[in-house]
Amino acid sequence: MSNKLRITVWGENVHEHKNAAVAQVYPMGMHECIAAGLRETSGTDEIEVRTATLDQPEHGLTEAVLEQTDVLTWWGHCAHGQVDDKIVDRVQQRVLQGMGLIVLHSGHYAKIFRRLLGTTCSLTWREAGERERLWVCNPGHPIAQGIDRHFELANEEMYGEPFAIPTPDEMIFISWFEGGEVFRSGATWKRGNGKIFYFRPGHETYPTYFDKNVRRVIRNAVSWAKPEGSKWIDSAPNIPVEQACEKIVSKGLSLHKAGEAGYR
Amino acid sequence: MSNKLRITVWGENVHEHKNAAVAQVYPMGMHECIAAGLRETSGTDEIEVRTATLDQPEHGLTEAVLEQTDVLTWWGHCAHGQVDDKIVDRVQQRVLQGMGLIVLHSGHYAKIFRRLLGTTCSLTWREAGERERLWVCNPGHPIAQGIDRHFELANEEMYGEPFAIPTPDEMIFISWFEGGEVFRSGATWKRGNGKIFYFRPGHETYPTYFDKNVRRVIRNAVSWAKPEGSKWIDSAPNIPVEQACEKIVSKGLSLHKAGEAGYR
Amino acid sequence: MSNKLRITVWGENVHEHKNAAVAQVYPMGMHECIAAGLRETSGTDEIEVRTATLDQPEHGLTEAVLEQTDVLTWWGHCAHGQVDDKIVDRVQQRVLQGMGLIVLHSGHYAKIFRRLLGTTCSLTWREAGERERLWVCNPGHPIAQGIDRHFELANEEMYGEPFAIPTPDEMIFISWFEGGEVFRSGATWKRGNGKIFYFRPGHETYPTYFDKNVRRVIRNAVSWAKPEGSKWIDSAPNIPVEQACEKIVSKGLSLHKAGEAGYR
Amino acid sequence: MSNKLRITVWGENVHEHKNAAVAQVYPMGMHECIAAGLRETSGTDEIEVRTATLDQPEHGLTEAVLEQTDVLTWWGHCAHGQVDDKIVDRVQQRVLQGMGLIVLHSGHYAKIFRRLLGTTCSLTWREAGERERLWVCNPGHPIAQGIDRHFELANEEMYGEPFAIPTPDEMIFISWFEGGEVFRSGATWKRGNGKIFYFRPGHETYPTYFDKNVRRVIRNAVSWAKPEGSKWIDSAPNIPVEQACEKIVSKGLSLHKAGEAGYR
Repeated sequence: MSNKLRITVWGENVHEHKNAAVAQVYPMGMHECIAAGLRETSGTDEIEVRTATLDQPEHGLTEAVLEQTDVLTWWGHCAHGQVDDKIVDRVQQRVLQGMGLIVLHSGHYAKIFRRLLGTTCSLTWREAGERERLWVCNPGHPIAQGIDRHFELANEEMYGEPFAIPTPDEMIFISWFEGGEVFRSGATWKRGNGKIFYFRPGHETYPTYFDKNVRRVIRNAVSWAKPEGSKWIDSAPNIPVEQACEKIVSKGLSLHKAGEAGYR
Repeated sequence: MSNKLRITVWGENVHEHKNAAVAQVYPMGMHECIAAGLRETSGTDEIEVRTATLDQPEHGLTEAVLEQTDVLTWWGHCAHGQVDDKIVDRVQQRVLQGMGLIVLHSGHYAKIFRRLLGTTCSLTWREAGERERLWVCNPGHPIAQGIDRHFELANEEMYGEPFAIPTPDEMIFISWFEGGEVFRSGATWKRGNGKIFYFRPGHETYPTYFDKNVRRVIRNAVSWAKPEGSKWIDSAPNIPVEQACEKIVSKGLSLHKAGEAGYR
Repeated sequence: MSNKLRITVWGENVHEHKNAAVAQVYPMGMHECIAAGLRETSGTDEIEVRTATLDQPEHGLTEAVLEQTDVLTWWGHCAHGQVDDKIVDRVQQRVLQGMGLIVLHSGHYAKIFRRLLGTTCSLTWREAGERERLWVCNPGHPIAQGIDRHFELANEEMYGEPFAIPTPDEMIFISWFEGGEVFRSGATWKRGNGKIFYFRPGHETYPTYFDKNVRRVIRNAVSWAKPEGSKWIDSAPNIPVEQACEKIVSKGLSLHKAGEAGYR
Repeated sequence: MSNKLRITVWGENVHEHKNAAVAQVYPMGMHECIAAGLRETSGTDEIEVRTATLDQPEHGLTEAVLEQTDVLTWWGHCAHGQVDDKIVDRVQQRVLQGMGLIVLHSGHYAKIFRRLLGTTCSLTWREAGERERLWVCNPGHPIAQGIDRHFELANEEMYGEPFAIPTPDEMIFISWFEGGEVFRSGATWKRGNGKIFYFRPGHETYPTYFDKNVRRVIRNAVSWAKPEGSKWIDSAPNIPVEQACEKIVSKGLSLHKAGEAGYR
């Protein structure tokens, strides 16, 4: 049995086939570039990386695949609405059980991200290929290892505040944009036992996922997000009176018989 | 124009008609009892209270009703699945804009609560009419005003840990149960600009919503949850290059025309 | 009895007397300028404002003054070390009881701020009179009311990330600096029942506290930070066996007699 | 060089010498019992454990010892006031740099715990040797591994809510007491890069630190709290104008020369 960290890189893989500019930057698809970056960057764990895309059966995210995934990365943009709600349910369940989730760039609007955070996740934006500088908010954090005080991307889409998210558990990066905006570009949350990291860069018309700092951050993030503890499958059990820790007798009226399942 | 705080008490109102025991305890419906408690208990704001139920058109939660609701209370149990997703969308949107939400007892499994928190919200439970003692975790908190160090309910359903929620912003009550369990019975979160309070007691076969401490807590909670600030309707604007704060020129390739709406 | 919100503006008031440039910008002292801004800006509550300074007996923060203070604002820079630890203890106690605290600019290094947050509160900085643009992260938040999507200060000291703070409860402003840095410029925490707001601008060589947006934010913040609920004075009581909610008999060995105070 | 996790178990070691009952339960001192438990319990990392006590020079917590400590456990009760503030400063600095800290039982009043949390950390209490049952709030959490849904201690001191702490990042255990109280018995925070876990059981007149579940929790906790990322030593650098990322010219007045250190 392998001790490697098992990563699944999910890519929408639509613009790569419809838009010549995107196809030129990412001829193998963005997911393959992200996967290659993970494989080529060294980190604190050994990893094995597979990819999955929207067009595959069950979007490539079958029960079996997710069961064998420690951390899932997610990039989507124009086809969020085509992701089947049943698959979103399944991914959510696995995150709550402990699977890590790295949400990239336009994935802020992915169903799974909005589902887990409970807010709109909206933001302001501009496509002008402007310079972005990402500042490290916590140089000691595992996700920021190997990154200097800041790093730059020569051309990126701008995302600006307000970013409609619940308060993150930790802030890792904040971006400065040439056009004058700022954005919370690297932030973490936990839902159930799953660690979630949102990382802003990655517009499909720029070669962002070839950038060594971006690759390093994603590599760090998958190690940070790996499951800890155990997989808890919650079941909302009805605890019978005779199994109560303290001796009690049933009083009053009941809707359910002893041990019967509750309403959902 | 009234300055009163406008409360809508939502009740599923199903068991009251199907179960003789529930009908006997709450002959006017649980929602009417909760509404009466709100009207009869004094608080830091004046309030006006209306009710809405599942069987009404749009479950009584039309755009107009929600627009005029400052705080919504929610009790449901056996019919969570019958709540229309479109109405859940609408309530979620209003919470994000600033409407307060008080989720009661079995409402832990309501679609709207799970939607906003992003987790399963499961727990363990037992119907034995056992004694529950709720301890105040922060005596200075607005929601705990008028409550002693603790208060008791002679007969209640038991809810036990683990309670599958994201870490609350503040813990107001923790329950001790006769049968030996504990539970995080009063907890707060914020999503967007909406304040959310979950309050555990309220099984339909017991007269919990007639209890003066329970009424006081709910009365405190609606005042605590009232909207502050302004209603922010997020719109994810595309900021054109010529409106950037700093003078920039567009570089590289774009997917969208200037000012065009983004993908969702 | 007045229902006005009672504000105490604390100023170190040292550079105003030692540095000609500062004296020219703030001839009455920075504290008087901040107080004037509070008095002249309209808000959601009526307020009454007094000032207190380092050179006064007990730094102007006697028991009586703090007892009558709903929200305290704090500006200090070169004389943090001269603030008596006993006064810091007293202010901390009042914050935990519910008094609001607004910490301004170089107050990030004030003893009281570090005491309440538990971290170093360090940052990077540069005095170059550069342009600062503060972006609103949550347009619906009470502290951001009346502020546009962003506002600018023509000349300010730069503060840059990393800002060594615990994760804020809410992020209200993030700054963009002309020289290329970013900073979490408006953030909130709660300690005990006291609400804390840190607001970055306010270097003493620039007329920042005359700026109408800065004044508006501070005015909003004091209303936001006002005490809610009740003043809880914690006392760590020893609960005697015979006063336990459940009937118990004492078992095993004890260090203390019934009702005796514990160690601290 | 060893890859073992290096643990320092700090014990006040006073009551063991002054109180016959405590000496009988813990003839080698509580710190040696806690250390033995750590050595004898298996966990996810190999560890090496040393102890340190109040009566040693620098309380056994020299620069060299702390530099070689990955996780520090802390038990104190009657002599909190005798802990030198300089040593508290040093421990705080190491926690902020990433050293884990496990605070045990009456350590809730330790200077270092209050320093890091910023609140009084008070609670209610009773010495009656009553039964305590600790419930797991998150069965998947690393700290709860190997623990059933709950575990019991036959005799313990009672600690009750309100527990005057800032909201924990995660809740791991809540206690039910025979006398009717509840308490947040296992909770986590992060300050700087240091992970902090508070664990309630451990009154000195009972053999709590011989209990296999208690030992397991402490063993899990030290692995959970181990440093991640890198040791960040913050230095609040003054960034000279000519090193700004964007080309700027200095405008307006300055208090400091370029590169000069700031006030603290």
